[in-house]
Amino acid sequence: MSDGSLGGYATLEELLEAHVPADKLQHAKRVLYGLNVGEPVADLAMSPDVRERAKQMDFDLRTALFRAAPEQLRPPRVVRIGLIQNKIVLPTDAPFADQAKAIRDRVGQMIDTAGQAGVKVVCLQEAWHMPFAFCTREKVWCEFAESAETGDSVVFCQAAARKWGMVVICPILERDGPHNETVWNTAVVIGHNGNIIGKHRKNHIPRVGDFNESTYYMEGNTGHPVFETAFGRIAAFGMNGAELVFNPAATVGELSEPLWPIEARNAAIANSYFVAGINRVGTETFPREFTSGDGKPAHKDFGHFYGSSYVAAPDGSRSPSLARHKDGLLVADIDLNLCRQTKDKWGFQMTARYDMYADFFARYVRPDFKPQILRDPAL
Amino acid sequence: MSDGSLGGYATLEELLEAHVPADKLQHAKRVLYGLNVGEPVADLAMSPDVRERAKQMDFDLRTALFRAAPEQLRPPRVVRIGLIQNKIVLPTDAPFADQAKAIRDRVGQMIDTAGQAGVKVVCLQEAWHMPFAFCTREKVWCEFAESAETGDSVVFCQAAARKWGMVVICPILERDGPHNETVWNTAVVIGHNGNIIGKHRKNHIPRVGDFNESTYYMEGNTGHPVFETAFGRIAAFGMNGAELVFNPAATVGELSEPLWPIEARNAAIANSYFVAGINRVGTETFPREFTSGDGKPAHKDFGHFYGSSYVAAPDGSRSPSLARHKDGLLVADIDLNLCRQTKDKWGFQMTARYDMYADFFARYVRPDFKPQILRDPAL
Repeated sequence: MSDGSLGGYATLEELLEAHVPADKLQHAKRVLYGLNVGEPVADLAMSPDVRERAKQMDFDLRTALFRAAPEQLRPPRVVRIGLIQNKIVLPTDAPFADQAKAIRDRVGQMIDTAGQAGVKVVCLQEAWHMPFAFCTREKVWCEFAESAETGDSVVFCQAAARKWGMVVICPILERDGPHNETVWNTAVVIGHNGNIIGKHRKNHIPRVGDFNESTYYMEGNTGHPVFETAFGRIAAFGMNGAELVFNPAATVGELSEPLWPIEARNAAIANSYFVAGINRVGTETFPREFTSGDGKPAHKDFGHFYGSSYVAAPDGSRSPSLARHKDGLLVADIDLNLCRQTKDKWGFQMTARYDMYADFFARYVRPDFKPQILRDPAL
Repeated sequence: MSDGSLGGYATLEELLEAHVPADKLQHAKRVLYGLNVGEPVADLAMSPDVRERAKQMDFDLRTALFRAAPEQLRPPRVVRIGLIQNKIVLPTDAPFADQAKAIRDRVGQMIDTAGQAGVKVVCLQEAWHMPFAFCTREKVWCEFAESAETGDSVVFCQAAARKWGMVVICPILERDGPHNETVWNTAVVIGHNGNIIGKHRKNHIPRVGDFNESTYYMEGNTGHPVFETAFGRIAAFGMNGAELVFNPAATVGELSEPLWPIEARNAAIANSYFVAGINRVGTETFPREFTSGDGKPAHKDFGHFYGSSYVAAPDGSRSPSLARHKDGLLVADIDLNLCRQTKDKWGFQMTARYDMYADFFARYVRPDFKPQILRDPAL
């Protein structure tokens, strides 16, 4: 069980589909995937060419469709989005330039397939252009960091954006030259014309086990920006008006696999927006051994990045997962009208107690903060 | 499918267990229930008398055990908690006093069983002492509201607390006499000596469909208190230091069943505390018809309260659910040490960006708030 596999199945859905009879499966799926909440998540029509291409290039291709109700005063705002998860291609002891080039070539295949499939906004995984080497604590991997304006990965994604008229979110390890070589974990948002709209630097930096990421880069200083693109307002944050939030991630089975199906859905529900959770895939082995702060002997890999990228909708429903062991492209049609419809239905944006939160946080950040505790006088 | 049943199974777990072979089931459960994250959720030893009593009285009894790692400087802090979900007993057109008395008698059976089973903190469901009549919008049901200090339900729970040396959380519809008959949705926290430690009034009042609860009571004014009891710090809030949070709820299948397995677990993970989610059970029919704001014809019930109460742990694991159609008592042993251990592991309490949140909320609540939006200049 240490590999955390799914007993030979590519996804949890496939495991359940293989064993639970259809009349019972509908009940399980209603609770697990929300198929009865809002509109069903259905399969998307897709040209055989695109499916054939995915087969030839040996990556997982899955689709989903999220409908919204018709409105009288506003047309549907359907956007076709793409999520790409990728393994590294060459071993981690290959020359860095070769490693980076091989990844770009591979991801380029999937980006082009997304373009052929009519995707208008595509997002890659966290630090997609390099191995997730932070587990090693070796600073040599900082060489992969690049400029968010002129780095190879960014220029590569700008070309793809121009080629397909597609917004590309390109999450990189950023080298910030003007600020004295500071390193950040940054998502660069590239417009459909290939221009850079802006960037967001990761705010919450893990300091856990092999994800000792604070060794490498600092807490982001770009706030909570929302990017207004030709195809909608995208970001990582709801209160500034995002309707589609991408969460490019890299996380392994033993640490987080039971959390993965929860977090994106909870964020989508709580904020009435779509969330696309994209996780790295594959097991990465490093040249020199390292320990993981868990008392176990040194080793050269730190577990399996389990992929399983998916889309969660504001009404609580979700798409199927991409595979657990394979590169993949998930194509989803989402009607952004579902965001405001969900806000109108649940009203979280109004029943939230923002005054109370503002007051609480203002007090909490003070060094002399006193928690509100009512103690049983009998104690 | 409008009954939203589980195809004849009491819980989702039982549905899966009936169809998925054991060697595959372990993989599905690892992802769905987090059995590989932290310690396993195991069955709790329980006297046959208690099990026999549950059988005779025809309520669902389930158990769970959440372990923490041994520490050198602190002993385990295992607390046995109980979650009780209950149907109403008499029809809603019976005299109100009879309805309330019948519910107290029934819930008393389960509280006594909890006491016999050694439970030290028990929590009842939201407004457990009355039908969930808010769907009707009729003000006649306000008669069920009672004083949080001297009401029948509170006095009843105080007696139970004294009898068993048990903390009781008693969520009622509160009638606030000193404030001119204001009505609140209030959880009264009763100490193990039967004294009232304090109360919390629900902050976020739904205004959705049949849950037009703002018709009846106001947004709470008690802040985010944490109650320090003989058996731990309990509340609904983590940043004031709660280690165990009860969420007494009442929600129906079509509205929220796919959200139910997510929300408590996400809160437990995000705040590094235990969450006990308790949902009402049964279908309640009212004397006079009402509409649900969904364009459908008037009717006399608004769906099935699906029970399914469960406990979520800070490490992402969870207990089995209570049944979907039956009264029930869930008994769980939880080691509160797991809270700080999880905080030490993940460090969310440190990597959170409280300064940024404080600044954001302070700006957000201003009428002239401007969202941080980066617009593609090509637009």
